[in-house]
Formats: sequence, structure tokens, C-alpha cells
Amino acid sequence: MSNLRGNACIGQSGGPTSVINQSLVGVIQEVQKSDHIVELLGARHGVKGIVNNDFLKLKSAPQELLERVAMTPASALGSTRDKPDAEYCKKIFASFQANDVRYFFYIGGNDSADAARIVNDLAKQAGYELRTFHVPKTIDNDLRVHDHTPGFGSAAKFVASAVMGDDYDNKSLPGVKVDVIMGRHAGYLTAASVLARKYENDGPHLIYVPEAPFSVDKFLGDVDRVYKKLGRCVIAVSEGIHDEKGTAMAVVLAEKLGRQIERDGHGNVQLSGSGILGDFLGDLIKDQLKIKRVRSDTFGYLQRSFPGYVSATDAAEAREVGRRAVIASRDDKNSAGLSVVMKRVSNAPYTIEYGLTDLANVARETKHLDPAYLKDGNDVTQAFIDYAKPLVGELPTVGSLTELK
Amino acid sequence: MSNLRGNACIGQSGGPTSVINQSLVGVIQEVQKSDHIVELLGARHGVKGIVNNDFLKLKSAPQELLERVAMTPASALGSTRDKPDAEYCKKIFASFQANDVRYFFYIGGNDSADAARIVNDLAKQAGYELRTFHVPKTIDNDLRVHDHTPGFGSAAKFVASAVMGDDYDNKSLPGVKVDVIMGRHAGYLTAASVLARKYENDGPHLIYVPEAPFSVDKFLGDVDRVYKKLGRCVIAVSEGIHDEKGTAMAVVLAEKLGRQIERDGHGNVQLSGSGILGDFLGDLIKDQLKIKRVRSDTFGYLQRSFPGYVSATDAAEAREVGRRAVIASRDDKNSAGLSVVMKRVSNAPYTIEYGLTDLANVARETKHLDPAYLKDGNDVTQAFIDYAKPLVGELPTVGSLTELK
Repeated sequence: MSNLRGNACIGQSGGPTSVINQSLVGVIQEVQKSDHIVELLGARHGVKGIVNNDFLKLKSAPQELLERVAMTPASALGSTRDKPDAEYCKKIFASFQANDVRYFFYIGGNDSADAARIVNDLAKQAGYELRTFHVPKTIDNDLRVHDHTPGFGSAAKFVASAVMGDDYDNKSLPGVKVDVIMGRHAGYLTAASVLARKYENDGPHLIYVPEAPFSVDKFLGDVDRVYKKLGRCVIAVSEGIHDEKGTAMAVVLAEKLGRQIERDGHGNVQLSGSGILGDFLGDLIKDQLKIKRVRSDTFGYLQRSFPGYVSATDAAEAREVGRRAVIASRDDKNSAGLSVVMKRVSNAPYTIEYGLTDLANVARETKHLDPAYLKDGNDVTQAFIDYAKPLVGELPTVGSLTELK
Repeated sequence: MSNLRGNACIGQSGGPTSVINQSLVGVIQEVQKSDHIVELLGARHGVKGIVNNDFLKLKSAPQELLERVAMTPASALGSTRDKPDAEYCKKIFASFQANDVRYFFYIGGNDSADAARIVNDLAKQAGYELRTFHVPKTIDNDLRVHDHTPGFGSAAKFVASAVMGDDYDNKSLPGVKVDVIMGRHAGYLTAASVLARKYENDGPHLIYVPEAPFSVDKFLGDVDRVYKKLGRCVIAVSEGIHDEKGTAMAVVLAEKLGRQIERDGHGNVQLSGSGILGDFLGDLIKDQLKIKRVRSDTFGYLQRSFPGYVSATDAAEAREVGRRAVIASRDDKNSAGLSVVMKRVSNAPYTIEYGLTDLANVARETKHLDPAYLKDGNDVTQAFIDYAKPLVGELPTVGSLTELK
């Protein structure tokens, strides 16, 4: 039971996902059942809304609307790329004091966990009772401690489906196809393209992730081998692939082309939504391997925002981590600044346990693909398939006339 | 009743769609009920398979497999970009004679209709009884006479959904977003992005199609006006937009960058799957309007190949045009070379009639957006919405917290 009564604040931060509003609605619905929270203030555009006193009152939101919002991609409250420094965090804390905010629910990735941690520490130093809960989200699936994060399963379902459809397209009109997939540092999403395979010789035939340093020579050798064998080749590649020195291939090319590299408030290079990497790899294949039909696509923002096509498991879990944060807030002992985590109990049947971990365990640094998931620098292992499959769920039913033979 | 008994040949040609196999299965299932067709030869990779004698026997294909194939995007028999000339058509005709092919069903766009027309004429000249039927498909929706073509509704559903999700993403993290959509000459698919709008001020805020000549100055003025009003702007633009002289903007840029322009066997410039146009427009906005957050995506091949997300109406119609071609083949009077067409009876309730038209009416030339569908050079009219909506069907359910106000 909670002896702390007051208002709560909820915000959404960073790149949205297609189920981030499930977590928002999970928080709202659980707050609606809670006496310890008087009003739930929804901060517009995350920490920006907090410092600008720009809030929506959410405690009495109608269920019909909430269920529609839950199905809507991207952050219904608005998001932000602002990474609060110490000064900014003081303003957040001042706003919390002014609004009698005693509970802070922040939905986001590792940078958001870090901002929440700083605000929680400030409150502690000032002797102001505040309970901070980080609700995880990120399509990159790169939060430490977390087995996986809400948002990943749905983005992975989109990616696997897209590569599956693209592979059928490539069977129809053979050639080389390069599909560039989101993921700056972690290759989970690109690796999930492996789930597109059903029949022998199905694509993706080659998978390149940031965790395996990219070599142009090895890449060309790989493509040449597959193309000579099958007369076609479908390649899944992370936007964040880099060379041995750690320089992103997209950056290497951008510099080569004299293009400006944009960085966001967190110092991250903007790699999404540009066809540079795909075009570059395609040109490389045409020039060096003399293959005529080479195409590339960069899946871009659709991976995180395509509506009406989420993983059912992912949607349910996203709702549940939101609920769990509010449930945890009722317990007086949960005042340290915590993140709601999922732990894998088993792959088959797929079972997880929910728990809590200190914000410091999640903040700032990111997780990478387990080396046990990587194969030959151009593929992923069965262990990764076993890990990812239950998160994505069923993929579209397909058939091939090769079954007639 | 048909007095002509023999084999039939079926092929798929050109860019695949996500429902082109519905038409294939429609043909196969109707042939399975037909006595006048002894065997149905599925040509691998269209006319290539015909001249190379590369066929699959389809008449006894099991229903369970056919239903899965029908749900699978891209051409299950394989496709081709070969545009047969007179010499090539003679080889096709020779193969038909050798295989006792008396019925030719060819699923494709206007180029395929033209190839079918030439082969049919050759047979007539030689006094060889052949009945040729063109089964329409094209995501571009650009076949003359046809009210619309199978493949368009599903691609339009993908595009409208993608822009809808992208618009929510843009509401979360405001800026300017450019979405480049397929369509060389016809803007139907880009225009369909209008269906993404639900609430006031929803995107796409600006829509540019090849039918309205593109002016850089007008474009910048449009974006500036929307951005100043809303603080954000989502733009849908056809890959085939061109200037007053008819030069494609993508080509203008490609030349500027010293890149090679690839053309397919039909002389069409390869514009899909490259981020050039989006990057160019994005850079233009950043440079000229001094807006910092500008992103672009090129939807690419997913528009025609994304699985498990088709328009139910489109899938049913694609199946039906295949069936109708076989039904028509039973009538001795249908020997002129025909295309199965859909005619709109009414928008509400949505009603169509199936019919037949001479191949010459469909072959070669393409249809453009009716001028009555264009608005201010940067939008489409309610008349277009009324036309497109029933073809696309229901879009994902969404909600916005602005409803709380």
C-alpha cells in the first residue's frame, strides 16, 4: 500500500513505436483504478511538456477512446529528442513540485531512463518524495537487463514480413536486392528478417548487422557466391553497419559525397530515411560484380509507425509493462527509481516474468546482439530464431508452386 | 459453348502486385471446371517460359496450395520485363503450335496487353485458332477503359496506411516528412495517400502527382505555408513528378549527381527503390526554408509486395477477373483478343460490372488521373476520395487524445 498521495505525470520520449500507446493506455487504465494518484498529467512532448506546463488530464479518459489510442502508432502525447542536462532536470523537478507530482512514469529507451534517473536523484537530494518508473520501449531492442523491449516485436514483424514479400518479388524478377533496416548499434531488427525464410533458398540470403564489422571485400564475395548459385540474392543490412574502425558505412559514404551529417540532441547520427547506404551498396554490386538488375530499399520510418500490423504478443506486453509500473508505484518500498523489465522463462512455450530493476542498470548504455546469435559475419543462428520467433508471432500465410514438383 | 478443344497457357508479366496470384488462381480454378481446356501450362517468367518451353502443369493443382498461393504476393509463376518484338512473338506462336495451346491467358499491364495482341494477330494471320485473354493487373491503375485494375486497391491500402502511420509519427516528433510513392506517369497511388486523413490538420498536407507539372518555387511556397501554420508538414509525392518540360525530377537530380540512369526492356526509367528524389526534396527544404528536422522515405517495393495486408475488395476482384477470362474463353465468339474489364456502376453502394474489351483499347498507352481529381496542383478532390475509398476498404482504427479537448 502507498502512503504517498498526489498527482502523477506520464510522458513519452524518443523514437515512437507502433505499440508505445499500449503502454500509455496501460498506465492510464491502471491509474484509473488507483486511489493514491489524484490526477494523471500527460506531458505533451515528454520533458518539454513538463517544463512548459503543457499537460493533458488523463484520469477520466473514456475507455472507447483509450482502446483506439492503444491501437494507434507513434506517441499520442507527443515525443521529444531533448536529452535533459542537470539544469533541464531542475526545471522538471520544479514543475513536479508546483504540480504536486509524486509519481513519474516515463516511457522511453535508455536515454529516457537516464533522464528519469537524474530527476529521481534530484528529488531525493531535495528530500521531495517522488517515485519514478521507467516504462521500456524501443524497436532497437537494445536495453540492458531487459530480455526484450515492447516495440521490438511489432517492428520485427513488419521487417520480417517486408523481407518475405520482397523475396517473393525477387523470385518473380530475379536480381540482387538490398534492404536497409533500422538499427544504429544493435542488429536485432535486421536479424529478425531471418524469420522471412520458409522454403529452401528463401531470402534473406545474407544478413549484416552492426555487431559484425563490415568488409566490402567479404560482402562482394558473399553476394557473388549466392548470385552464382541462385541467380538472385536478397540482402538484409542494418543502417548502422560499420567498418573495422567503427566508422558507419553510411557516414563513410556521406563524407565521400560531401553531404552534411545531421545529429540529434543525443549526438546520434541521423541514418534513417535516406537511401544513401542502399544506393551505395547497390552501386558497388553493379560496378564490381557486373550484375545488371540491382535494387535497394530503405524501409525507413514505416518500421516503427506502420498501423494495423502489430505483433499481438508485443501489444499485450506493452500494455502490461505500463500497468506494472502503476502497480509497483503503490508499494512504498519502490522509491529508488525503477524500470519495469521482462525476463524470459522459456522459449517453448513462450513464457516471461515481469520484474523491476534499478534505473542505473538500464540508463545510457545499450545492449548488443549476443555473439551466440551471429553466424559467419553474414547470417544469424537458430538460437536467435528461437529467441525472436515468439516475440513476432505468426507471419502471413504463403505458398509456392514449387510445392507442385 | 466452345467447339475449340486444346491446351491453355497462362503467364504473368511486368511488376508483380500483392494480388496478382489471386488472378492466377482464379484462372486455374475455373480451368479445373472446364472441359474445353485439356491442360493448363503455366509459363515460368511470362513469355520467356513460353519460348523456352518452361512450363508447370497446373490443371490438377490442389486447392489447399492454390489458396495459399493466392495469398502470396508477387508472381508465383515468375515474371519478366521482356517486351516481345515481332520476332519474339513468332517464337511464342511457334511454341503455342507445338504445345497445342488454343487459349492464352496473360496477366499484366498495358505492355502485356500489347504482347498478347501481337501474338493473337499472328495466329489469325496463320489461320491458327487461338483465343487470347488479357487479365489486368497494375498497382499504377493506369489501364485505359478499365475503371480500375486489380493490384491498385491493395497497393493504395498500403500507401494510405503507411502515410497514416507516418503522419502520427510526425505529430509525435514534428518536422517535415517527404514520402516518395510509386507511379511513373500516373498519380493514382500517390493520390490514394489522401485516405490517411481522419482528423483536422492530418497529413498528407501536400500531394504531388505526375499529372500536375512540378515547380520547385511553388513546392517551397506550399511547404512554407503548411509548416508555418502547423509546425509540421507531411508530403506525398510520386516518384514520377516532372517539370513543365516533362523531365522527371528524379532524372534532373540524377544527372546533377552524375549517376547512371537505368532503363528496363520497355525503355522505362528505373525510379523505384532509390532515395534520390526524397533526399533531393529534403535537402531543398532544409537549404531554402531553413527547417532543421526534415526526413524522407521512399516506400519502394513494399508497396506492391507487402504480404498479409491486402484490400479484401481488391483480392476478390483479382480472383474474379481471372475466372471471367476463362468463362469468356468458352464462347466461340470471343476470339478477337480481349481484356477483362471492370466498369463502375456506382460508388455508394460500391458496385461494378465485369465486361470485355478489345486488346487494342488497352494496349500500349496509359491512363492518367482525371483532371477533376486534381486540386490546386498540391492536393486531390473529394471526387477522387469517392472513387478510391471503396477500392481500398477499411483502414486501421486509430484515435487521438485531441478528442479529450
